[in-house]
Amino acid sequence: MAVKVGIIGASGYTGAELIRLAAVHPEMSIEYITANRYQGTAVRDLYPQFTGISDAVYEAYNLDTASGKADLFFLALPHGKAMEVAPELLNAGHKVIDLSGDFRLSDVAVYESWYKTRHTNPELIGKAVYGLPELYEEKIKKADFISNPGCYPTSALLALAPLLSEKLAKTGGIIVDSLSGVSGTGRDPKPGTHFCTVDESLTAYKVGGVHQHTPEIEQYLSDISGEAITVSFTPHLMPISRGILTTAYAEAATTVNLDELIDLYKSFYKDKPFVAVLPKGQYPQTKSVMGSNYCQIGLAHDERTNRIIAISAIDNLVKGASGQAVQNMNIMLGLPQDMGLRYAGLMP
Amino acid sequence: MAVKVGIIGASGYTGAELIRLAAVHPEMSIEYITANRYQGTAVRDLYPQFTGISDAVYEAYNLDTASGKADLFFLALPHGKAMEVAPELLNAGHKVIDLSGDFRLSDVAVYESWYKTRHTNPELIGKAVYGLPELYEEKIKKADFISNPGCYPTSALLALAPLLSEKLAKTGGIIVDSLSGVSGTGRDPKPGTHFCTVDESLTAYKVGGVHQHTPEIEQYLSDISGEAITVSFTPHLMPISRGILTTAYAEAATTVNLDELIDLYKSFYKDKPFVAVLPKGQYPQTKSVMGSNYCQIGLAHDERTNRIIAISAIDNLVKGASGQAVQNMNIMLGLPQDMGLRYAGLMP
Amino acid sequence: MAVKVGIIGASGYTGAELIRLAAVHPEMSIEYITANRYQGTAVRDLYPQFTGISDAVYEAYNLDTASGKADLFFLALPHGKAMEVAPELLNAGHKVIDLSGDFRLSDVAVYESWYKTRHTNPELIGKAVYGLPELYEEKIKKADFISNPGCYPTSALLALAPLLSEKLAKTGGIIVDSLSGVSGTGRDPKPGTHFCTVDESLTAYKVGGVHQHTPEIEQYLSDISGEAITVSFTPHLMPISRGILTTAYAEAATTVNLDELIDLYKSFYKDKPFVAVLPKGQYPQTKSVMGSNYCQIGLAHDERTNRIIAISAIDNLVKGASGQAVQNMNIMLGLPQDMGLRYAGLMP
Amino acid sequence: MAVKVGIIGASGYTGAELIRLAAVHPEMSIEYITANRYQGTAVRDLYPQFTGISDAVYEAYNLDTASGKADLFFLALPHGKAMEVAPELLNAGHKVIDLSGDFRLSDVAVYESWYKTRHTNPELIGKAVYGLPELYEEKIKKADFISNPGCYPTSALLALAPLLSEKLAKTGGIIVDSLSGVSGTGRDPKPGTHFCTVDESLTAYKVGGVHQHTPEIEQYLSDISGEAITVSFTPHLMPISRGILTTAYAEAATTVNLDELIDLYKSFYKDKPFVAVLPKGQYPQTKSVMGSNYCQIGLAHDERTNRIIAISAIDNLVKGASGQAVQNMNIMLGLPQDMGLRYAGLMP
Repeated sequence: MAVKVGIIGASGYTGAELIRLAAVHPEMSIEYITANRYQGTAVRDLYPQFTGISDAVYEAYNLDTASGKADLFFLALPHGKAMEVAPELLNAGHKVIDLSGDFRLSDVAVYESWYKTRHTNPELIGKAVYGLPELYEEKIKKADFISNPGCYPTSALLALAPLLSEKLAKTGGIIVDSLSGVSGTGRDPKPGTHFCTVDESLTAYKVGGVHQHTPEIEQYLSDISGEAITVSFTPHLMPISRGILTTAYAEAATTVNLDELIDLYKSFYKDKPFVAVLPKGQYPQTKSVMGSNYCQIGLAHDERTNRIIAISAIDNLVKGASGQAVQNMNIMLGLPQDMGLRYAGLMP
Repeated sequence: MAVKVGIIGASGYTGAELIRLAAVHPEMSIEYITANRYQGTAVRDLYPQFTGISDAVYEAYNLDTASGKADLFFLALPHGKAMEVAPELLNAGHKVIDLSGDFRLSDVAVYESWYKTRHTNPELIGKAVYGLPELYEEKIKKADFISNPGCYPTSALLALAPLLSEKLAKTGGIIVDSLSGVSGTGRDPKPGTHFCTVDESLTAYKVGGVHQHTPEIEQYLSDISGEAITVSFTPHLMPISRGILTTAYAEAATTVNLDELIDLYKSFYKDKPFVAVLPKGQYPQTKSVMGSNYCQIGLAHDERTNRIIAISAIDNLVKGASGQAVQNMNIMLGLPQDMGLRYAGLMP
Repeated sequence: MAVKVGIIGASGYTGAELIRLAAVHPEMSIEYITANRYQGTAVRDLYPQFTGISDAVYEAYNLDTASGKADLFFLALPHGKAMEVAPELLNAGHKVIDLSGDFRLSDVAVYESWYKTRHTNPELIGKAVYGLPELYEEKIKKADFISNPGCYPTSALLALAPLLSEKLAKTGGIIVDSLSGVSGTGRDPKPGTHFCTVDESLTAYKVGGVHQHTPEIEQYLSDISGEAITVSFTPHLMPISRGILTTAYAEAATTVNLDELIDLYKSFYKDKPFVAVLPKGQYPQTKSVMGSNYCQIGLAHDERTNRIIAISAIDNLVKGASGQAVQNMNIMLGLPQDMGLRYAGLMP
Repeated sequence: MAVKVGIIGASGYTGAELIRLAAVHPEMSIEYITANRYQGTAVRDLYPQFTGISDAVYEAYNLDTASGKADLFFLALPHGKAMEVAPELLNAGHKVIDLSGDFRLSDVAVYESWYKTRHTNPELIGKAVYGLPELYEEKIKKADFISNPGCYPTSALLALAPLLSEKLAKTGGIIVDSLSGVSGTGRDPKPGTHFCTVDESLTAYKVGGVHQHTPEIEQYLSDISGEAITVSFTPHLMPISRGILTTAYAEAATTVNLDELIDLYKSFYKDKPFVAVLPKGQYPQTKSVMGSNYCQIGLAHDERTNRIIAISAIDNLVKGASGQAVQNMNIMLGLPQDMGLRYAGLMP
């Protein structure tokens, strides 16, 4: 029997993506969709792609109604709001998968410094399991409360984890250069998301190590390597709707044989259905994973500088958000982790 | 038990799309994939989105091998080639769904005039059922041989069928103005499909009623209305990968009440899972059906000129080709026609 | 000596385009730039392309300051506001080129009905010369007050004028199907101009003959032909920043020889530097005129329906707005009409 | 009196861009345009944007004809071909600006290793002046033979030159991460430039320090700094037609004050009309320089890693190729270096 799920804060892009994925997931039944400012509005009026597919209507969030309708909740709320809602749903005995940044960082002071918000439920931070299944599957299996990774961190961690886990790279001097499609900035129209601003243009933003995903990348890289790691992270905005491409640079700790390196990555991700390591000489393109939960990884070695370049591609709304959340749900519920998620990228 | 299918000529975009759809269809098992010029090449080397999803390798087409491996065949061949392969597969007792234009026109002279090719199997033309399920579902149920509609005709026929079926529009003076994404021109690189040519540009082509889809639109509109219909059809090339938007203009035969007109369309398509008629004041956007088998239709009435404007949006590779082919397969096999096809458009 | 110009309402796209064009016009010196809500802001802070090119700062509009600084004014204001500012600048003895729709329609009742605004200076309507130089150059030469054409009407009128002027088409049943880039909707961010909404999508809007450019197209087509003309006009939004492509359909009044038709167009536009009639079989692409003041026109004849299809491409911000305004200024000042405007489209 | 110029190999994108720029340059008269494989074809048939602007026809290259028609030649030939043509034009007493890579590298062995071609005129290498006017203006003034810089090197060198010239960065560990629009790959259609491949996709190519622009970046960075410099350079292909964005990472050699750093850049480029250093917190977007000869530079300092991030944006076909070539021509001829080039980027 399908699990009854609720999506709290479902007017944004990650909420809509959860609705899209749920529509074809055999064990996932959406029973409750909230968006306070769109109370009473049909989902298909905001997202016309659901015309003929869903007659769901946004409700205003209310704990009692939520509890009566569903058992597992996805929080697609902005940071600062998720921390308010998560505790009461957990206390009411529900499973919660939080897509915000509120519970990803283990040190509340780090959170407050980077997110510029006071954390109102710091005691809950330690109880959230970081939902990157390729690294933390065993913990996720037992969890009731998942903190779903950020989009950039997902791409960076999957690109770098084997290197650091196997001590193949030096832990200093890592550079994470990432490009994201515009959906990553959310649904609200802003001058910076106007078609005429973005179209035919490339730009960087939050340059200089100031993006709030920086400490998330660092915390989990440090966890993997067992050493404190600091990275230089630069995000860029690209004229595509979906996709993240991360080019990560790390100094090799030893001599490198590229064939062996690729084999090591394949071995590291052997039982991970959503990571595809590409053959030598192939590099990922984001379109290969557009609309898909896959992460593709390509590898190179710059012999002249002895740097390893690991490149990963994901769809920021799927593996970088809602697809990964469904993958986490599958694992929490004891379902095959790829249930409802085995779609190839929409290419051409 | 899943039906064993073969895809003949699977190196092009419609072939790749069939592979994508088959991967998530519960009753469809691809056993045979051919592309003569890519014999021995892995599908994922041409289409990296399948890395980690399919290890299929292109074979050279051969009737005996085909017959041994599969029961139902999709022909994703260029016109002129499908007419050679279809007869032998049919004679061997297989079901065939032909995605080319070779068997869509009932009059061989019309075919030869518009396609500028001699038809080598004209006796087979009458045996193919035109695979537009919204109009010909009963025939498709009993068919072994389907001629799958063209992309532009699918969009034009779904937009205009209720009007002409119900005699609400005059049969003279119909204009079909259509815009297509670039995937409609196929996978081979040409000056006209170079990114720098298409990007940020709009253009028309084959202007003046010379596109080979014109007689297909006319034949089936005539069939619907019971009168011989001639249309002015203009295709345009747009800077998107997927999607067709058709704006069709027809002079109203009577006074028009737009609310009633919309209700009539909803009623006409009541049991058709893949046609969504939009409410008054909403018009389809191709992104709502990107990657999806849906057709969205919006309607307006120009009171000053008494013209009805019917606008439809489809994904040219899905409802305009491979998705419709799978829908036809479902119907032929007695499966629910929407099996494996209920995905919403990839939006944002 | 260069003419001193002011741009009133220069924070929008047409204002920025005037600044771009003025920067390379040898006889045009911008002395005054206003945008009330950006008073004190540097132009380059809104439009970073001017960094290193212009240090201009937006002022709040004031008649006295305006009069002291410049002699000729471009009004890049929204409709409803231009009608307030134009009279006082004209009364002060200045030349005025109004880019809004406030003075394009000769019948104030028609204006008020389509623009849904009361006209506060109807007595001025008759004094504005419609600034389409290819048709009204002689009047423009003597004018102090120009009403600059709308973007869609410019494309439609240039496509159809020779046909109607020479009585080659019937005046009934004309269809104007137009596609525009997103800059035509202005600089303010809206859900409909969000990159993720527009990108990879095609849609129609204001369908059913309700766009306010409809009566403008009709008024000047009627003027050209000497008969009252009603058209069906459908605008579409396309995923490009700049460009309009208009496909106009008209029933031929006589038998048509396409070569002769093309020659007639070439002859009609013989001394018009910014209209390029393409050879038989070529159709315009908007990128050919991106950033340029040219209009390209291609022609076809559908022999089966005896319809003439005339297709035109312009850049909506240049020939469709600011470039045409500069062309009008040149003519008013007795300069060569192509001064500062002879740039080819930015292609690739 | 205008200089008579010839463009050798003008069927590609850089050739077309020279024609576009020449059309509005007051002292540049194109007298000779060659493209052997398009002999007899009108330029406007390949590039319809020139319809109504240029009636030029491609000729086959011939030294005698060339010498009779023009005095200064742009070589827009592929590498390997320019090295054949340059000597005879120079010997005939002409000025030559070579846009290929044939004469950029001072060490013929380095050239042959990276370009995988034997150099047939190595003795000429030392005679070419590297045409980056912001660094080598004095040499360009006296030169008859210019080797015009590559697109990526232009963006990288302008971003990093002040840092290395002023010893503010360590010379080891520099990373140059660059993104280019598709026009950089040339006009020939290939699977990798098909619209459906590139559109909505991001990818890296020639990863691992193997792109042939790597030694060019290194040679001139070494020249600027006085030390041998090795960089890690990764190019990416982006879904835009024009533009390069380079994000360069360098470890600071000292403590950094960002305001002072920006002032230093402004001072370094004080008399350079085409470099615009952006204020603190602003980063360049390629659209700001689309169609323009400007380079915009933005700076940040990552305090946690003490890395300086210098970001530059150019149009690869203008400042990265043909515009820079015209700038070099201006300097060689004693004209103002910005003559005919002061256009802002085409934005929106």
